[in-house]
Amino acid sequence: MPMIARVYVGLKPGVLDPQGRTIANSLNDLGFNEVVDAKQGKVIELRFAESDAGRDAVEARVKEMCEKLLANTVIESYRIELDEE
Amino acid sequence: MPMIARVYVGLKPGVLDPQGRTIANSLNDLGFNEVVDAKQGKVIELRFAESDAGRDAVEARVKEMCEKLLANTVIESYRIELDEE
Repeated sequence: MPMIARVYVGLKPGVLDPQGRTIANSLNDLGFNEVVDAKQGKVIELRFAESDAGRDAVEARVKEMCEKLLANTVIESYRIELDEE
Repeated sequence: MPMIARVYVGLKPGVLDPQGRTIANSLNDLGFNEVVDAKQGKVIELRFAESDAGRDAVEARVKEMCEKLLANTVIESYRIELDEE
């Protein structure tokens, strides 16, 4: 069955997040004063070719993709979710 | 109890996603040939001030934020998740 991986990439705690700051400020300006903080991250959804690879094998490959391309591990952390389509 | 909202924003089906295309191509170039398609979206995490507002009230406010600022509803769809901190 084809699998889908969702990779959530966000800044590590303590890393300055000017984009999140801007979102929170803009929301406050629009009258949403209950918002005290905002952070922006990204989600990458990957669709795979049909294969016999098990869940663990797919997860290991996605982890490799994160380390090599999808996340900048100096400042970003990531979380992987696998789903069957 | 303070609440956290996570808003997932992604392109609607059928909208061209050059960023996703580039990710899929780059992964293929790196030898991850099992990836047939990729899509990139964003996650916005909002932290709220302590309040007595119920879940439904908070969700309605976050929906308003999405319509007004967080998503471009012409080409993007969004999904809201609420969590207690």
